[in-house]
Amino acid sequence: MSYFSNVAAIRFEGPRSTNPLAFKHYNPDEVVAGKPMRDHLRFAVAYWHALTGTGSDPFGAGTAERDWDRFSGMDLAKARVEAAFELIVKLNVPYFCFHDRDIAPEGDTLRETNRNLDTIVAMIKEHMKSTGVKLLWNTANMFTNPRFVHGAGTTNNADVYAYAAAQVKKGLEVGKELGAENYVFWGGREGYETLLNTNMQLELDNLARLYRMAIDYAKEIGFDAQFLIEPKPKEPTKHQYDFDAATTIAFLQHYGLKDHFKLNLEANHATLAGHTFEHELRVARMHGLLGSLDANQGDLLLGWDTDEFPTDLYATTLTMYEVLQNGGLGRGGINFDAKVRRGSFEPEDLFHAHIAGMDAYAKGLKTAAKLLEDRVLEDAVDRRYASFKEGVGLDIVSGKATLASLEQYALDHDKPIRNVSGRQERLKAVLNDYLLSE
Amino acid sequence: MSYFSNVAAIRFEGPRSTNPLAFKHYNPDEVVAGKPMRDHLRFAVAYWHALTGTGSDPFGAGTAERDWDRFSGMDLAKARVEAAFELIVKLNVPYFCFHDRDIAPEGDTLRETNRNLDTIVAMIKEHMKSTGVKLLWNTANMFTNPRFVHGAGTTNNADVYAYAAAQVKKGLEVGKELGAENYVFWGGREGYETLLNTNMQLELDNLARLYRMAIDYAKEIGFDAQFLIEPKPKEPTKHQYDFDAATTIAFLQHYGLKDHFKLNLEANHATLAGHTFEHELRVARMHGLLGSLDANQGDLLLGWDTDEFPTDLYATTLTMYEVLQNGGLGRGGINFDAKVRRGSFEPEDLFHAHIAGMDAYAKGLKTAAKLLEDRVLEDAVDRRYASFKEGVGLDIVSGKATLASLEQYALDHDKPIRNVSGRQERLKAVLNDYLLSE
Amino acid sequence: MSYFSNVAAIRFEGPRSTNPLAFKHYNPDEVVAGKPMRDHLRFAVAYWHALTGTGSDPFGAGTAERDWDRFSGMDLAKARVEAAFELIVKLNVPYFCFHDRDIAPEGDTLRETNRNLDTIVAMIKEHMKSTGVKLLWNTANMFTNPRFVHGAGTTNNADVYAYAAAQVKKGLEVGKELGAENYVFWGGREGYETLLNTNMQLELDNLARLYRMAIDYAKEIGFDAQFLIEPKPKEPTKHQYDFDAATTIAFLQHYGLKDHFKLNLEANHATLAGHTFEHELRVARMHGLLGSLDANQGDLLLGWDTDEFPTDLYATTLTMYEVLQNGGLGRGGINFDAKVRRGSFEPEDLFHAHIAGMDAYAKGLKTAAKLLEDRVLEDAVDRRYASFKEGVGLDIVSGKATLASLEQYALDHDKPIRNVSGRQERLKAVLNDYLLSE
Amino acid sequence: MSYFSNVAAIRFEGPRSTNPLAFKHYNPDEVVAGKPMRDHLRFAVAYWHALTGTGSDPFGAGTAERDWDRFSGMDLAKARVEAAFELIVKLNVPYFCFHDRDIAPEGDTLRETNRNLDTIVAMIKEHMKSTGVKLLWNTANMFTNPRFVHGAGTTNNADVYAYAAAQVKKGLEVGKELGAENYVFWGGREGYETLLNTNMQLELDNLARLYRMAIDYAKEIGFDAQFLIEPKPKEPTKHQYDFDAATTIAFLQHYGLKDHFKLNLEANHATLAGHTFEHELRVARMHGLLGSLDANQGDLLLGWDTDEFPTDLYATTLTMYEVLQNGGLGRGGINFDAKVRRGSFEPEDLFHAHIAGMDAYAKGLKTAAKLLEDRVLEDAVDRRYASFKEGVGLDIVSGKATLASLEQYALDHDKPIRNVSGRQERLKAVLNDYLLSE
Repeated sequence: MSYFSNVAAIRFEGPRSTNPLAFKHYNPDEVVAGKPMRDHLRFAVAYWHALTGTGSDPFGAGTAERDWDRFSGMDLAKARVEAAFELIVKLNVPYFCFHDRDIAPEGDTLRETNRNLDTIVAMIKEHMKSTGVKLLWNTANMFTNPRFVHGAGTTNNADVYAYAAAQVKKGLEVGKELGAENYVFWGGREGYETLLNTNMQLELDNLARLYRMAIDYAKEIGFDAQFLIEPKPKEPTKHQYDFDAATTIAFLQHYGLKDHFKLNLEANHATLAGHTFEHELRVARMHGLLGSLDANQGDLLLGWDTDEFPTDLYATTLTMYEVLQNGGLGRGGINFDAKVRRGSFEPEDLFHAHIAGMDAYAKGLKTAAKLLEDRVLEDAVDRRYASFKEGVGLDIVSGKATLASLEQYALDHDKPIRNVSGRQERLKAVLNDYLLSE
Repeated sequence: MSYFSNVAAIRFEGPRSTNPLAFKHYNPDEVVAGKPMRDHLRFAVAYWHALTGTGSDPFGAGTAERDWDRFSGMDLAKARVEAAFELIVKLNVPYFCFHDRDIAPEGDTLRETNRNLDTIVAMIKEHMKSTGVKLLWNTANMFTNPRFVHGAGTTNNADVYAYAAAQVKKGLEVGKELGAENYVFWGGREGYETLLNTNMQLELDNLARLYRMAIDYAKEIGFDAQFLIEPKPKEPTKHQYDFDAATTIAFLQHYGLKDHFKLNLEANHATLAGHTFEHELRVARMHGLLGSLDANQGDLLLGWDTDEFPTDLYATTLTMYEVLQNGGLGRGGINFDAKVRRGSFEPEDLFHAHIAGMDAYAKGLKTAAKLLEDRVLEDAVDRRYASFKEGVGLDIVSGKATLASLEQYALDHDKPIRNVSGRQERLKAVLNDYLLSE
Repeated sequence: MSYFSNVAAIRFEGPRSTNPLAFKHYNPDEVVAGKPMRDHLRFAVAYWHALTGTGSDPFGAGTAERDWDRFSGMDLAKARVEAAFELIVKLNVPYFCFHDRDIAPEGDTLRETNRNLDTIVAMIKEHMKSTGVKLLWNTANMFTNPRFVHGAGTTNNADVYAYAAAQVKKGLEVGKELGAENYVFWGGREGYETLLNTNMQLELDNLARLYRMAIDYAKEIGFDAQFLIEPKPKEPTKHQYDFDAATTIAFLQHYGLKDHFKLNLEANHATLAGHTFEHELRVARMHGLLGSLDANQGDLLLGWDTDEFPTDLYATTLTMYEVLQNGGLGRGGINFDAKVRRGSFEPEDLFHAHIAGMDAYAKGLKTAAKLLEDRVLEDAVDRRYASFKEGVGLDIVSGKATLASLEQYALDHDKPIRNVSGRQERLKAVLNDYLLSE
Repeated sequence: MSYFSNVAAIRFEGPRSTNPLAFKHYNPDEVVAGKPMRDHLRFAVAYWHALTGTGSDPFGAGTAERDWDRFSGMDLAKARVEAAFELIVKLNVPYFCFHDRDIAPEGDTLRETNRNLDTIVAMIKEHMKSTGVKLLWNTANMFTNPRFVHGAGTTNNADVYAYAAAQVKKGLEVGKELGAENYVFWGGREGYETLLNTNMQLELDNLARLYRMAIDYAKEIGFDAQFLIEPKPKEPTKHQYDFDAATTIAFLQHYGLKDHFKLNLEANHATLAGHTFEHELRVARMHGLLGSLDANQGDLLLGWDTDEFPTDLYATTLTMYEVLQNGGLGRGGINFDAKVRRGSFEPEDLFHAHIAGMDAYAKGLKTAAKLLEDRVLEDAVDRRYASFKEGVGLDIVSGKATLASLEQYALDHDKPIRNVSGRQERLKAVLNDYLLSE
């Protein structure tokens, strides 16, 4: 049985191909910056968007035409597994990601819910084995069910907190069972709607407690995945605690958790927080916390998470530039946390969208690698900060300077200081040159 | 000689007064929540907006009609001191704040600049003595002069860094000389225009180094003011490192500087960062870092720092609510970092604007105090989180719970969980009731 | 049978009442500015939020606890009618509003859908008769069903357009049957996702054609309701054609439709478009197009339509100020296009929320009326523009001036021009004084 | 005498050139879509940014290193003319644009101001003659001088209005003298700070009066330039009347001025108003009002007019796509209303920036032309709307359909309607393919 019978496996055909169902830039075997593209990019399909998503929005019902929607309940869950692996394999993507509730429906009781999950996990495990597809990360959906209306790890209701803890426990077990490389926490309901009714201190303390329990339990069961926190500033909640990379780092530092986590950064979440994606990557990188990417793009003229497939080549280039400088993503990868537009409701659009994103990332990788190889930006930066490599600059960075010694220096050199242009427009032109080259 | 001869000293006349040049809510002697209003509010006039500001904007020249503009150079600086103290005394404001360059002009050399500063500082000291007006804080302007085009503590140019250090040193000396309660760092140029030419790591390391030198030097000279950092996300720089409270806290934690600083939070900077002002106050308060306030308000439909005088009673109420819960501001105060609109160019507008702001804060204080006295929000919050005071909730907060124990609890209580409404609309109505009461 | 048995009819008890389920400002019989409050405010309950809404959001399932959700299909529709009238009557609200699909479910065919609608309309008519509640406006939901994925009046698919036309036809018949005062068009899907695939010219031409057909048909059947267009800039669609008041006016003028429509303006839509609500009201008022209000408020730190109940007294005052200057809303009213927060899921919250909104509007009305009675703003404005009542100013407004005559005047008066302060800060303080008075 | 002696005239060297001071895409003689690039692009240098701008911002003094700043007064004005023509000629740009106050300083009186202007205009005329450079448009700066604090054409002060009229008159005379192709109105102060003190109706009526006087006077003196209005939503004013293209069109229609104006659209103004640039172009194009372009780009994460040089190839491609479909810009052109960053303060940066912008537009032109040549988007759009070319669709567009006839059609075809995917992701990938091709 095939859910995408109209579409053959996608192959690399090069930039001049006019076949819409072919890769033009993503050539998994092509060696870039010392290793094959596939090892740089470690793409993943997001189960929730590709398999579970319907195309609904706050003003409209689902539009997605999905053959598996003939089924319901556990039959639907099983059909989705079949479809998922067909899609992933045809796209030549090595990884996937899911929330617990994406893959299996909730039952009437937690026990039944967990049984549903076990059934599907077993089925997924079989498919992983037969296809070689791997699990980049899994996570627990602690935001959709009405019980989480006031939060999960930051709820005001201890019963809800206990339920969330049970869900995390099961999530860790599932991750171990499927050999997940990472385990993600995204706190869509971990925040507040209004401070008027909120005990923020208790909520954050409790969130840290949940993380500690998760660390302990993972250790107990020998699940050695990298833990990741995914910042997002708002939506669905008015204010979410993991606002951005820096806020999450402040939290991890404050609660002594920094050694146990890295960040799963998302492009659209960055822009919702008022940052470029490359800013968030840089911040994480500087703290050694760059874990994994949720690859998508937002519409900066819209104020919500549009989760569009990433096609902006500037963004993919600057993203891969940070990733390459980070020495790669380690156990992380590039997960397409992106959904086809509501108007792109045909099954084929899933392929067009992933191809668009994969090609954009491949081209971004190649452009970034070329930039680094030629050291255009590196050299410009090195020259720009050269004054800190000798004389008073070296005194400053080596910790020898004091306010008094620097005042003395300033008084001794009391003439107009010569600065040098930052050459921003030229660098933007260079970026265009590299993008258009080849 | 008088610069505001048309305006007499402003007095409290109560809410029914129709005199535009009187306080309707700010009654400095009135006891609210256990102490006189003046001790809660500790207002300060911002020298740069009130005395130095011209009403210019990026598309227009200054409009402010200021009698002292007949003068220039050091004469202008001296005239401004006279005008400043007349304004401050007539407004019955106990404090003022300034940047070094607000009060005295730069000379051709650093030495001359410092001499100018010394002259005006001596004059200010006399006025402080004779009037009893005190210095809430001073700071160094390291953003206006072209030398800081690429930053001061985060410049790429070691000579500029040394110059900035000399300026901070002098600033600490001036603060000590005038008995400043606090010393502020605002990094308008500490950030980047584009990551393409930026070594963020070095820049942040250097900024921390500058802070450490300042700590050492203050200790050396026995200047015991509270150090404050003032976050702002952007403007003039594309991205500023002290983006918001949480980002600044992450920085302080990372560099081991948290014990040496508190935050000077500004309302308009909060909203530019995507936060309510009360959010920023809460974050700082939770970390014991709520230092002082820059009182103003932004226009949320505009994307730049409008620095309007604070008149929104919701904002002043929620601000004072956080301040009261913090046990006050300690050595900090409420500085009107606010400018009269470009169209409000008459000297009298300086009085109208400060009166509007002081009355709005006084009314906010009284409303917040009443809310706290009646414990309306406190009781609602306590009830809301009651489940963490017993049973499984107590296990969670006391650290006894594990994922396994919580899963067991969840399985043992495997029935629909009952949540309770957050009652946001009701709480908003309560806020209106309290605002309109009396 | 009662769906709100815990709540008695809401009464006016005055500002000192501590009863949360009472009006503190809304006293329908109280005469303000020459007529009873009820005639000024003409409140309406929005069926979709109050009866049909579930509290779902893009990341979470519905939370609303509604007793009528025991039912399904037509039984649910009927139960909602009962609940609606109980709510409306207990709230002492004179009007309600609905979309066709709020009140009755779609059937398998258009014929069945229309039959469902007829059944419920008959039932509603009975309730209207027995309670005296009236229909402020109805409209057609042409955005939820997947068939409208690419638009209704601006779809690329003629079959969909025909379907939409059929729905409008039925909507006009229903409006006539129930004596609706107005008929609304809101084009949530009338816009585009990307210009890359859009024929904007054809789409707008077709939209105008649909409006003309509606005008003709309403005339044909003798339905004399006021037609209203409701602008919204975006969401759900990336760009909606009725972006704001001015854009809609441009459309109406271009297609010669201005005499046939007024505007239904919504507060949250105004702020999403970058305007204050009072701006939109003023623009419509100046064109004689101020038709009706969708009363709510947005969160300006969030980029989507939060549709919160209006509690901001500044906003309600400035809104009623425009309405009073418009001589009222004519056949329009104040519809609470507002939803209880997802966390306010108890039935009682529907009452708290409407009370909060009605009291905020009542207080806004009284404050605006007092401002107008005292002519504080009018007099200030008159004085400000006085120069256009005589001399060269009169020449300008009377059309006598030319560039040459004005140049001559300028040359004859070639000395510095004296402007007068706009006194913005003082006017903000006055607004506070009026708000807090009484 | 040379102000840019380090820089030789810029030549086209092709995409593989590594010379930063050469064009890589802009080849003025290259024929694209039937005519040479220079005729498509009609570039202009903006005098205010390139010659008069200093690099100041609201928090910092000017940084620009300009050799002509040795001079002052009229000598400075003359030096700038020399520098301007050297820059324009070396850049191989055919046009320039200016405000009256860019080119000559104000004197103590209007008469003196006009004399200053006459002197410089004569000098410019000589340079135009000798170089062949032409004037794309001129305009009057009615926003910088403090007299315009409350507006020019919308001021509350009739004396200011008269002064503005005199300035417009002179501007038209200057335009005629220099053979300007267009005359621009940008109303940076035509709006309001607060509605509390504003008579919007009178202000707009007066603005329309000023436009009518200008039309009359231009006719009188035989100045046949195209009149252009440049929309901007805000900044410096809180709300500007010419908010966007649609708002300006509504104004022109309302006052019967539509035949006399076209629009000068700016990219950064579009995004400040919440639109893409291509949206604004499309709206203007549909009304036959696409006049000229102010080419720049904004930073969508910043809320003010950054006026960056345009380097985003997506934006330039979609811009030129609209321009080509408009059959070109007629008398309009592409004016670089863009400023080098404050950190790009060296004279050479003026070249880097213009080269970056010109190359970006040239590449955009070529990509757009190829897209049109291949009809990729046209064909997709035609197919998408094909249903309106026959049957019921044809009835709709030909005006034969009524609500009743369409209802009958819908009832006769009462089965699920089949829509077709909008293929947005695929079209984005196509755009990338075209951008990267060649």
